[in-house]
Amino acid sequence: MREIGSTEGPIKIGPYSFLEFFEEVRKFHSFPAPGVVLGGIMVEAALKHMPSGILFNALSETHKCLPDAIQLLTPCTIGNGWLSIRNFGRFALAFYDKETGKGIRVCLDPARIEEWPEIKIWYYKLKPKEEVDSEILLDSIHKAGSSLCRLQEIQIQPVLLKKVKRGNRIICPQCLEAYPDDGHGACPACRGGSPYI
Amino acid sequence: MREIGSTEGPIKIGPYSFLEFFEEVRKFHSFPAPGVVLGGIMVEAALKHMPSGILFNALSETHKCLPDAIQLLTPCTIGNGWLSIRNFGRFALAFYDKETGKGIRVCLDPARIEEWPEIKIWYYKLKPKEEVDSEILLDSIHKAGSSLCRLQEIQIQPVLLKKVKRGNRIICPQCLEAYPDDGHGACPACRGGSPYI
Repeated sequence: MREIGSTEGPIKIGPYSFLEFFEEVRKFHSFPAPGVVLGGIMVEAALKHMPSGILFNALSETHKCLPDAIQLLTPCTIGNGWLSIRNFGRFALAFYDKETGKGIRVCLDPARIEEWPEIKIWYYKLKPKEEVDSEILLDSIHKAGSSLCRLQEIQIQPVLLKKVKRGNRIICPQCLEAYPDDGHGACPACRGGSPYI
Repeated sequence: MREIGSTEGPIKIGPYSFLEFFEEVRKFHSFPAPGVVLGGIMVEAALKHMPSGILFNALSETHKCLPDAIQLLTPCTIGNGWLSIRNFGRFALAFYDKETGKGIRVCLDPARIEEWPEIKIWYYKLKPKEEVDSEILLDSIHKAGSSLCRLQEIQIQPVLLKKVKRGNRIICPQCLEAYPDDGHGACPACRGGSPYI
């Protein structure tokens, strides 16, 4: 991974102003989570460094907040398979060329977070949620913008670029529902993974 | 799991007509995937049987298409944590009360699919994608509606209702990024899980 400079400037998040994006987050995510708003800034910072006109996939290194920023601002969703999640607990995301695996990763820079007390309190959970001043927090995120980001050029492991071919759908003899044949004689839920009583 | 009757009637998917929902799918999912459109019908069928005014979570039993129908039609998203995915490969979803785990599951009924040749061809991949007549397929989905669904009352395993408390964020000594402390001395990516070269 090679570091590249982050860009700063007036905040524009995809086609939205900061406040417009805040409203989009409220609609989709049900509340204006600071993590999604900050995620939007990260998405924007990464996309600026991606070549235009290529088909890209997205990877989120946490399942919290960031996937929603990606889904709001790019064609990549969980359901279309262009967004995947690897739950490392790192607040970071990457976009990469579907074919070559070359791309850009963006994460938060802990050194920069030190400069913004309310962001630090929220990020490291130094106060209970209800004691965080969300107005100061969001204002800090707005002002700090992409200066909080560290950007890197990345190359995805080639094995992860290969399309996994699933078996044909067959009927599970236990639940009588269709699932992709994986040679185990019953679907994964009936083999013991069911979340239901 | 106890079976309950599915409901039929003129198709309305959330606040949308069938065609309006088709357009919402195109915008969010990037193309009008039959799986998301059918997913919308399943979401609608399940929600009709949920008590109103409760906070509910969603579970998708596949990562394909269904999660996007859920995200488009309910407050549950991947990023806010109210939607989770258990990738059993079954085209099924469930909504359940966050507190009690009681809810409704909806899946496709293989017997009903037999009655719709184009849906059967698409669902069991009996022809290459490009040979499926998407107009007949979507028209069949429109006409078949919730008659394709099997509905069940479910109870989620109590252990899955418990909130998992993660450790405080600490700095990984290798990548110098923050991650939730899990007592292993480095973040999961630096411990060998990195998708990057």
